[in-house]
This record gives sequence, structure tokens and C-alpha cells, in this order.
Amino acid sequence: MAEFRRDPIDGKWVIIAPERKRMLVEFKPEPYPSSERRCPFCPGNESLTPPELFAFRPPTTKPNQPGWRVRVIPNREPILRTELELEKEGIGSYDRVSGIGAHEVIIETPEHNQTYSQLSEEHLKEIYLAWKERVLDLKNDARIKYVLIFKNYGLSAGAVMAHPHSQLIALPISPKQIIEELRGGEEYFRFKERCIFCDIVRQELETKERVVFENARFLLICPWAPIFPFELWAVPKEHLSVFEESDDELLAELAQVIKFGMSQLEKTLGSFHFNLVLHNLPFYLSSSPGFHWHIEIMPRLTRVAGFEYGSGFYVNPVPPEESARWLRKGEK
Amino acid sequence: MAEFRRDPIDGKWVIIAPERKRMLVEFKPEPYPSSERRCPFCPGNESLTPPELFAFRPPTTKPNQPGWRVRVIPNREPILRTELELEKEGIGSYDRVSGIGAHEVIIETPEHNQTYSQLSEEHLKEIYLAWKERVLDLKNDARIKYVLIFKNYGLSAGAVMAHPHSQLIALPISPKQIIEELRGGEEYFRFKERCIFCDIVRQELETKERVVFENARFLLICPWAPIFPFELWAVPKEHLSVFEESDDELLAELAQVIKFGMSQLEKTLGSFHFNLVLHNLPFYLSSSPGFHWHIEIMPRLTRVAGFEYGSGFYVNPVPPEESARWLRKGEK
Repeated sequence: MAEFRRDPIDGKWVIIAPERKRMLVEFKPEPYPSSERRCPFCPGNESLTPPELFAFRPPTTKPNQPGWRVRVIPNREPILRTELELEKEGIGSYDRVSGIGAHEVIIETPEHNQTYSQLSEEHLKEIYLAWKERVLDLKNDARIKYVLIFKNYGLSAGAVMAHPHSQLIALPISPKQIIEELRGGEEYFRFKERCIFCDIVRQELETKERVVFENARFLLICPWAPIFPFELWAVPKEHLSVFEESDDELLAELAQVIKFGMSQLEKTLGSFHFNLVLHNLPFYLSSSPGFHWHIEIMPRLTRVAGFEYGSGFYVNPVPPEESARWLRKGEK
Repeated sequence: MAEFRRDPIDGKWVIIAPERKRMLVEFKPEPYPSSERRCPFCPGNESLTPPELFAFRPPTTKPNQPGWRVRVIPNREPILRTELELEKEGIGSYDRVSGIGAHEVIIETPEHNQTYSQLSEEHLKEIYLAWKERVLDLKNDARIKYVLIFKNYGLSAGAVMAHPHSQLIALPISPKQIIEELRGGEEYFRFKERCIFCDIVRQELETKERVVFENARFLLICPWAPIFPFELWAVPKEHLSVFEESDDELLAELAQVIKFGMSQLEKTLGSFHFNLVLHNLPFYLSSSPGFHWHIEIMPRLTRVAGFEYGSGFYVNPVPPEESARWLRKGEK
């Protein structure tokens, strides 16, 4: 029997409709077309990319030469550029802001065919440390209000390049979705004097129904109102709002939960396409009583239809209690 | 050069990034698989569907027999059902509402292979009259707060059935996207004492830059901040908030602009997949100083990636001034 569930943070409603499971079966992810071209993200081809901005590499190797483990470069065809002036303009009822910002690629591994779940915890930690370095650097630019970090894997998830990578887009505006989460958290705090994320952590640990994994610092859950089947959130147990304030030890714990989550998803779903998005505090705030930074992993097993765009309503055929049960065991 | 544009109604930001036009070229819509099964929406197969709720048919024909021009039936596998009780429940920090509502299919034509642009204006008007009839009927159920009407065409747009149809989902909750448009319109009205939609109509008619077509009652525009390339909105010129109050003459004018828009899209894009969504006033209001009901047509030429879900930011490689120029002429 279907039911409506409200996301307790941003207030969006999701229809959990177990009767619609055939939505899942009918969807087959398309593989990457095999390419004859040299991959610009592979070691040895560093000259095909713009010069690197950051890398984890042995001190004996030189920038833009092989030897790196994680490498950050500007996107060759950036959506946004730092060289522009920040201009804000009104045209009648309309508003426009110049396309300043940055668009970078985090090449996650030298291995072209490695999947995310094959990366070691140590390696994942270096990816998250690279994210942190880039956020800290971009925060020095007063025009930048938010740095959006995400990973698209697979054609169905919008990724065109097969080589494992995540992306970073630095924005002169805070994203609407993040603002809504912040507002939702603030409203909840005004009402209850408690943080909604802290409450979610507490409630999930009590019922365990939607918990997939936990370690000392993180909870890995199927959220109450997931917009996608098998959606997973990694949420810090403590009240931590600012991702770039994370220390090594915290990011090592993050790597552990993400590695576990990705491995279980793969065991349960087989090969699958996904988006992974870091939700972080915008730079105009240094803290918030109602927000935890967190990571959302969205497997792309269904097609998003007009219904969703027209309404902000999502239909999800898999209840999170069920996906959590499967993912805890890694079962099909 | 890219720029950020703010949707003047719901406040969402879109990046217009003309450099990213290759996003378009790489995307080929997948055709429907040919099916051996009998189509339940074709005339003669009426017994394969639940009994009809409404139809336009000659008085000499019987319900659930051939002869109809437009036929409305309950969805065989509805997401929501009217037979349930409306129950609202809090579980700790979480909220849940029972899945009451309705899910109907509007079979738009007896012809299995007819495209939307091949339907006559007279026929389109009957489809919109059928929508109106169903909304008026469902409005009698006090549990229903909103009726979402939409059309998915093509696999990329989430449609599984090839036979031309639109869908209706009656909800016990108002959709977030509509609430945001209403709130945006109300805020604008408080600030300026004018309706944002009326202002858009006025401004677009002055500049003509984004106008594709107009008739006595409607404006067909590429909106200022479209989330999809070649997105089209049909907006009443007058201040009309409630779709189901439309008279025959208004719906005939609507049919004319939609027919023009769909034909031009086909001339410009060739065969394409799309979503079409009616944005209407929720039932809890009888009028609004800041809202026009309207129709949004979203061709699906790009893949939506993680970036969009994580941020509410959309990247659109085609400026609406450019798509309007193409669509006015119907050029490739």
C-alpha cells in the first residue's frame, strides 16, 4: 500500500509505492561506449588536461607527471570561470548573475576501470582530503558562496567520461536545495530547540529499521523519505555543519562507511549507475544549529518522469526499511 | 559565456551555458520496443481496462465500446487509491500520510501512432475539456488537495506505454513545486502589488525576445530561466489562476498555442521525448493575486545528473532567446 512521506529536513513529499516495483525491472543501465581515444584522465596523458591544481603524489614525482594517486584539474570545458567579474543585474522582473565560479575534476584513481567500491578506505580518504583542500582554497575567493561536490557514475547518471572522477562546481550563489535544508533545519530548531539531524541520528539508532551501518562517527541510513530506491545517506553522528573542518580521522571514518555502502549496493544491485552529492554549509554561515553536512548516494534505477518535475513529488517503489534490510546483508 | 538566471516565480537558479551544447548532440532518444501484446488503449480493447470514468463519444455509442475520441480510465496499477482512509501520522520526527488519491489515464486519441502535434486543435480542446471534467469531479472529494495532470511522451521522459495518453494524479497534499510558485508569487505581490505572471506577460510582449507565438488569450514563451533546452510555457495573458474555470473558448485558444508549439518543436528537433505539466492552483485557494495556471512543456534532450539533484541548480546549454528564435521559424 502506498503512502506519502515528508522529508523532515526540506519538507518535500515522496510517495512510497511498493506496487510499482516493475519500474525497477524495466530499467537497464546502458554501458559506456568503448572509445578509441586516449583517456585524458589516465597516467601518462597528463598533458591532455590543464595543469593540475592539487594532487596526492610521492614527493619524488613532479606535477603533471605520472605517479599521482588523486589528481585535481580544472575542467577543460568549464561551465563557470574564475576570470569573469561578478556582475548582478536586474532586467525588469528578471535577475541575472555572471557565470563566475570554478569547475574542477577530481580524478579519483589512476586506474581507468576501477569501480568506487574497489577503492581502498585509505584511497577514499585521500579523495575526501582532496575535496577538503579544494574547498578551503576556493573559500578564499570572496565571490564564491558555495562549493558543490558531486560524483556522477554511468551514462544514466549523467557521466560522460568512464574514468573514475568526481566534480566540483564553485558557485556565486547558494543552491536552492541547500538553502531549503538549512531553512527546514532552522524552523525545526526554532520550534523544538533541537537539531533535526541530531534527532534523525537518535531516532534511527533507536529503531535501527533504516540503519545500514555505523561506526564511531557516522551513521549510514536509508532515509525516511528517499526520492530514489536504495538511496543512502552518510550522516555525522555529532553536530558537524562544516565539511571542510573535518580532520583526517573523521574522513577516515567517512571512507569506511562509504566503502561499506558502495560494496553493499553492488552486492544487492549488481552493476549500477549513481550520483553522490556532498551537502555542505554555505560559506555565508560559519555554523548552524540545525544542519549536519552529509553525503547522499542516489542509485539511478528508475527514470524521472514529468510528474516529478511538475510537482517536486517523487515516486519511489522501494520502502527504505526494505532497502536497508537488503543492504545490511548485501542480498539480492 | 555562461550566466546564472533566477526563475522569477519559484526563485530557482539555472545556469545557461551555451558552451555545453555537446550535451545535446550526444543524447539520442531510445524508441519504444515493439510489442506483440494487444494495446489496452486501442479501440476494440476497452475490456482490457477498468470501466471508463469519462469519454467524448457520439451519443449513439455505449460506454466501454469503440467510437470514443477521448477516454478517461482509472490506472490499472494506480499509485494512489480513493478507497483508503485519509490518515496522517507522526512517527518521532517523521510524518506520513496514507496513500489516498486517484490515478487516472486520459487516452488522448483512438489512433495508436498519432503524435501530439498531429492532433487537431478541436481534438486537443477535447483533451483539455476532459482534464477539466475530471478536476471538477475530483474537487468534490474533500480529501483531495491538488490534481496533478501531466503527459510523458517517450522512454526518456518516463512513458512506458506508446499509445498517446496523459495522466492525472489526485493528491491529498499540495505539491512542493506549486507551493513554491504560489509563495514566490505572493512575495512578489506583497513587494510590488503586481502579479509576477502578469508582469512576465507584459515584459515578454515588450521585448518579444522569448515569445514563440501568441493568440488572443495566450502567450507561448521560452521562459527566462528554463531548466531544459527548448522548454516552452503557455501562459494565459489575463489573470486566471484556476484551470477548471476555463470556458470552451479559452481551451480552444490553449489548443491553438499548444498545437503551434508542438509542431514547431518537431520541426526544430525532429522526433523528441517530452513532459508536459499543467500547473494549477491548489484547491485550498479559490484565487491568488500572484498566480496564473499555465502549461510547461519540457523536451528531454539532456540527461539530468547528480549536480541537479544535489543542488536544485540546472545547467541548460541553450539560451531561451535562441530557442525562441528557432521555434518561431521552426528551423533546425
